Amino acid sequence: MRDERDLTALVSTSEIRWDAIAREWTVVAGHRQTRTFKPPTSDCPLCPSREGWQTEIPEDAYDVVVFENRFPSLGQSAAESVTRREELPFRSGPGVGRCEVVVFTDDHTSSFASLTPKRVGTIIDAWVHRTAELRALPGVEYVYCFENRGDEIGVTLAHPHGQIYAYPFLPTRIARSAQTLVDHVEAGGGCLQCQLLADELSDGRRIVVTGRSWVGYVPFAARWPFELRLAPRRHVGSLPDLNADERTELAAIYCDVLARFDRLFDTPAPYIAGWEQAPGGPLGEARHLSVDIFTIRRASGKLKYLAGSESGAGVWINDIAPETAAARLRGEGE
Amino acid sequence: MRDERDLTALVSTSEIRWDAIAREWTVVAGHRQTRTFKPPTSDCPLCPSREGWQTEIPEDAYDVVVFENRFPSLGQSAAESVTRREELPFRSGPGVGRCEVVVFTDDHTSSFASLTPKRVGTIIDAWVHRTAELRALPGVEYVYCFENRGDEIGVTLAHPHGQIYAYPFLPTRIARSAQTLVDHVEAGGGCLQCQLLADELSDGRRIVVTGRSWVGYVPFAARWPFELRLAPRRHVGSLPDLNADERTELAAIYCDVLARFDRLFDTPAPYIAGWEQAPGGPLGEARHLSVDIFTIRRASGKLKYLAGSESGAGVWINDIAPETAAARLRGEGE
Repeated sequence: MRDERDLTALVSTSEIRWDAIAREWTVVAGHRQTRTFKPPTSDCPLCPSREGWQTEIPEDAYDVVVFENRFPSLGQSAAESVTRREELPFRSGPGVGRCEVVVFTDDHTSSFASLTPKRVGTIIDAWVHRTAELRALPGVEYVYCFENRGDEIGVTLAHPHGQIYAYPFLPTRIARSAQTLVDHVEAGGGCLQCQLLADELSDGRRIVVTGRSWVGYVPFAARWPFELRLAPRRHVGSLPDLNADERTELAAIYCDVLARFDRLFDTPAPYIAGWEQAPGGPLGEARHLSVDIFTIRRASGKLKYLAGSESGAGVWINDIAPETAAARLRGEGE
Repeated sequence: MRDERDLTALVSTSEIRWDAIAREWTVVAGHRQTRTFKPPTSDCPLCPSREGWQTEIPEDAYDVVVFENRFPSLGQSAAESVTRREELPFRSGPGVGRCEVVVFTDDHTSSFASLTPKRVGTIIDAWVHRTAELRALPGVEYVYCFENRGDEIGVTLAHPHGQIYAYPFLPTRIARSAQTLVDHVEAGGGCLQCQLLADELSDGRRIVVTGRSWVGYVPFAARWPFELRLAPRRHVGSLPDLNADERTELAAIYCDVLARFDRLFDTPAPYIAGWEQAPGGPLGEARHLSVDIFTIRRASGKLKYLAGSESGAGVWINDIAPETAAARLRGEGE
């Protein structure tokens, strides 16, 4: 089916601005305020196109589709409309980069966890492919593959999909973790994430799943009520570095983990899942790949809100002990 | 009125845990999961006590009341129940410190913005007094005075109140800002916040209010849809260092600012307001006091959610340009 919509070119006027005191970038994307907001199912732009209704996807059926977000927070065209200013305190520049949508299935009412391993394998291939492609774009410093799932996370389209952000800077939190791993290697300690995996396996209380190639555990200092880190046993930096066995097991174990979040409460938990992989340059050399999955639901009908301590001071208070969360994710007790 | 309730002693089993890779502390406070959750107005524990119903406050009427939170995220008693472990990767310790509730008024249906300057003066005096007292507690590294207001922020008690957290560590975000200010002084640049105030006043586009002693502006790299930083013109580090004139003007200008947030939308905006002041030790010497007030509401009926980019990668995407937000807070447009 041909896409016969009369679309204007994608234009991003995104700007990145430097907070000179907090020392981090914010993205200002004023043009996104009018983006599509919870359309009725019949108007879903991620469903297959049909007679009389053209969506973003000009096909009757599909497995996985990747396309550029029509309301991008970051886009290469920003370079044309936004000026770069290097001088402090008002340092700023164009929000170049790219925001892509990864549609997981053509079934509007499905979910990632319920896809077959073969279909998930195709999504993993897409993540690998897009990571490699987006890394190579001019100005891109970091590629972040993630999924937001559920109303409570603020998802504006219910159709199962994830996103990929290619940032023009290294995000603060990811930079700090990458720096820790580099420092640990330089101090002669080897890979800290490899050591953590070994220590978690030996302790056992926070382990949720173990495979031949992957281990899923609740981090010792988890910030969220239910949070799980899935990491490869082998020291691998990025999605494109995974070998065939690791990819195959990932397809199964990742769905297993998501299904555990679905079973925590009376209804499937809202969650965020995001891949932390190696940035380019020297900071990337020590990175150990992982995906962090967490929910903001702390009990049926109760959410963890980010209030003064978290959003203001940056200190997370977690009401659920990680050992308790791990037991629940293993399916033990209530 | 005497408090005749048969209360058990406040016990905190809070633990602080070190995230060895992200290099920050999380507070694990499992005992808080059962805290009071949105009681009906007739059962409000912050209203004055009355015949047959004893609340937290054994008085018929009051101006400002400060007491220790009965479900504290941090408490001195944690030292008795939680062991300290210094060795990595599972470094942890007792969540000592203190969490206090500051009740702003005995009028359940009132708000901070509608208090008289004289009453606000009493609250400022309480912040000053408690900052000095809590700083002196054993193990306390940072005192954070803040208010969460509104259902959307997750406030569990509607009665107008704020909180004070005395943390046993310096929060990451506050440490980073304090370090920036120290670095800037050491590089011969003077106080960066003083310079920013001058630059903002000279630019003008993000200025919202100006007083003799205080300036309120939307930060150039604001992370939230509507965000305002109120800072003294004089280089002052902490609330206890404010002089009488500064305190007097603060009482009026702070309410003026909160009232502007109340007028942004059809109903009063949910907000978080938090004071950033000097930590103890060398990092505190360069600190310039400020209070940051921000709302997560981006339009009537629409919230800014912290999804993958913010909660996962730590990158804030702001859909509203700070210059637009400042104009709205000045009362221009829309």
